[in-house]
Amino acid sequence: MQEQKNRGVTVPRGFRASAVACHLKPTGALDLALVVSDYDCTCAGVFTTNRVKAAPVLFDQEILAKNPGTIHAVVANSGCANACTGDEGMANARAMASYTATAIGCRDDQVLVLSTGVIGQQLDMTKIRAGIADAAPHLSPNNGDAVSRAIMTTDTKPKVSAIRNAERQFAIGGMCKGACMIHPHMATMLAVIATDAKISPTLLDQALHTAVNVSFNRISVDGDMSTNDTVLVLANGASNYEIRDTQHVAEFTDALTQVCTDLAKQIVRDGEGATKFVEIDITGARDQDEAARVAKSIANSPLCKTALYGGDANWGRVVAAAGYSGVAVEPSKMKLWFGDVNVFANGMPTQFDEADSTRAISGKDVFIRLDLGQGNASTVVWTCDLSHEYVTINGKYRT
Amino acid sequence: MQEQKNRGVTVPRGFRASAVACHLKPTGALDLALVVSDYDCTCAGVFTTNRVKAAPVLFDQEILAKNPGTIHAVVANSGCANACTGDEGMANARAMASYTATAIGCRDDQVLVLSTGVIGQQLDMTKIRAGIADAAPHLSPNNGDAVSRAIMTTDTKPKVSAIRNAERQFAIGGMCKGACMIHPHMATMLAVIATDAKISPTLLDQALHTAVNVSFNRISVDGDMSTNDTVLVLANGASNYEIRDTQHVAEFTDALTQVCTDLAKQIVRDGEGATKFVEIDITGARDQDEAARVAKSIANSPLCKTALYGGDANWGRVVAAAGYSGVAVEPSKMKLWFGDVNVFANGMPTQFDEADSTRAISGKDVFIRLDLGQGNASTVVWTCDLSHEYVTINGKYRT
Repeated sequence: MQEQKNRGVTVPRGFRASAVACHLKPTGALDLALVVSDYDCTCAGVFTTNRVKAAPVLFDQEILAKNPGTIHAVVANSGCANACTGDEGMANARAMASYTATAIGCRDDQVLVLSTGVIGQQLDMTKIRAGIADAAPHLSPNNGDAVSRAIMTTDTKPKVSAIRNAERQFAIGGMCKGACMIHPHMATMLAVIATDAKISPTLLDQALHTAVNVSFNRISVDGDMSTNDTVLVLANGASNYEIRDTQHVAEFTDALTQVCTDLAKQIVRDGEGATKFVEIDITGARDQDEAARVAKSIANSPLCKTALYGGDANWGRVVAAAGYSGVAVEPSKMKLWFGDVNVFANGMPTQFDEADSTRAISGKDVFIRLDLGQGNASTVVWTCDLSHEYVTINGKYRT
Repeated sequence: MQEQKNRGVTVPRGFRASAVACHLKPTGALDLALVVSDYDCTCAGVFTTNRVKAAPVLFDQEILAKNPGTIHAVVANSGCANACTGDEGMANARAMASYTATAIGCRDDQVLVLSTGVIGQQLDMTKIRAGIADAAPHLSPNNGDAVSRAIMTTDTKPKVSAIRNAERQFAIGGMCKGACMIHPHMATMLAVIATDAKISPTLLDQALHTAVNVSFNRISVDGDMSTNDTVLVLANGASNYEIRDTQHVAEFTDALTQVCTDLAKQIVRDGEGATKFVEIDITGARDQDEAARVAKSIANSPLCKTALYGGDANWGRVVAAAGYSGVAVEPSKMKLWFGDVNVFANGMPTQFDEADSTRAISGKDVFIRLDLGQGNASTVVWTCDLSHEYVTINGKYRT
């Protein structure tokens, strides 16, 4: 049981967590989380590129610009996004940080804030204040699982990941939430990653951007994001392992990338109403940007996604989605595979057996590869199918 | 009954039509259509911008480049798109034109070809040939309704429109098909419009592009299209009314725009699984392009569309979709209305009554207006909601 509880963000040394239900969620489920380090942390963040930024995003950006070297805690709530809430929303984000600082004994500018849930409602600060006061006395390394549950919205399962580098004696552990995979732009993706390695804010920022680019950005596909999307990484140095030279940075970045990739794939697998995990592999592109545009066009196509849901190996929709991607693809050079079945080449369907292509997309994991035949660049993105359940969930989200 | 039958393309003088079932559709429904003019026509077309173009699109573009002044007929089939079919597909498109020319007595290069249906299958030319031979003897001005049915795929109803200019004594009549409205890129939109006005190929081409830009392109939103999308207009001059000077051109373009707009809106209303017709009006943009990008972002958002389906006045998703449109919108300047209920202003929800906003989106017609507060440019797009039925239809389209 110890093992089950000590997951995600509390795997690295010197991090404790606590989660309570402060009743922002009408169900009474956990909805307030504290992650606190025993030591000052360097910290880096990647934030939404949406022009409409939620109050906690603006608040965290302000804090990290001034103080990336002595962060102490993250306070997060689900049930209310504190987005589109004006000056009152900004004041509430500040108050959340302040209440947390008081409760755990640090400065206000050492606390970062995350919120997720419905847009356009003000936070109930009476509940938030009570929740922070309730949570603070119960900080423990055994609450990694509980905090990962407290940040869930339409997620059906908590998402945690951790890795330990035995040789270097450091660990990285994280949690995330996010479950909407069609256009992930608007379903908030939050991630908090902790490590007991010692690393400067600048190197941590570089490592995080590298890792996010090939993990969380491979599911959001084009970098567009919700009003609240945030990935935070906190490094408290409790392992006494310091990352300075190039090789150490590369090792650390690899480990961080593994944790981020594991978390990102968990988001796709838990996509709202998702029944299939779909990897789209674009090869033979002239450059990385073109590969990404083709991949995005396929990954965002409701027609491709509904066909996969229905178990219909409708390769024509994939080819057509590549055709309208804006990239100057050449149908005669394109080759398409569902699993290991080559279904399209030379501008025409191959003589494949329909039963084979149907079988190739019938499992829970679907692999689609499109070779553009124009160059050597490639990319991989992960997405899911579009089901009846997705429509049900999103037709009534607020009620 | 005469009135019912003489609709759409056969309203203008000198056009006859015929439709038969040649069994490309397994249901035995009408699937082959001929539209024939008694006189040579000037002709203009707007074609898909998809890099993957179906054989009939390539064929028609070739014909119109050489011979825009003496077109005589259009032959169309549903049940098979003749797309991704290589050299054999091109030969089959040519053969369709040739069979039609023989059957009605004109040159091969006076016939245009349209196909819609499943991608990647070769046309059954035995059926096509027999269908053309069956249809040709029955050409009649009373078959306007029948041909509009013969081009349907997942459409639930035929789409026709006509207008008569009493003063100038000319008429314009058309038909179209197309029913997929989420990303219209891949559900073929076909339209054939006939007029008995006399107009040069150059002026007709200009008028068509102007009309399509504010009608069919307002539903395809960003101009991306399926492998087969085609809008054709044929002018046979049977009214003896010749369009030459600027005022006449403007009048004709207005009338053509009315027919195209009526047809385009019918496509939205018949969107696959659609339960609501949604008009999105963007005002206060800095320029037309920015207005269109914001409109597209909202119109293509599955989260906005599922919320409308569910009757949830989730204004936050609309604001967020504008935020990730790529346009530098400013939340504090934005104002949003559902119907006549102002739900968002000054970066925050207004003090509106939730019952009012819910009522505003509860009917079959929903009107959303977003004022960006940055300039004087505006645009209107039409879309529909995203329902369970859409997923059902597109999960099993080929079977």
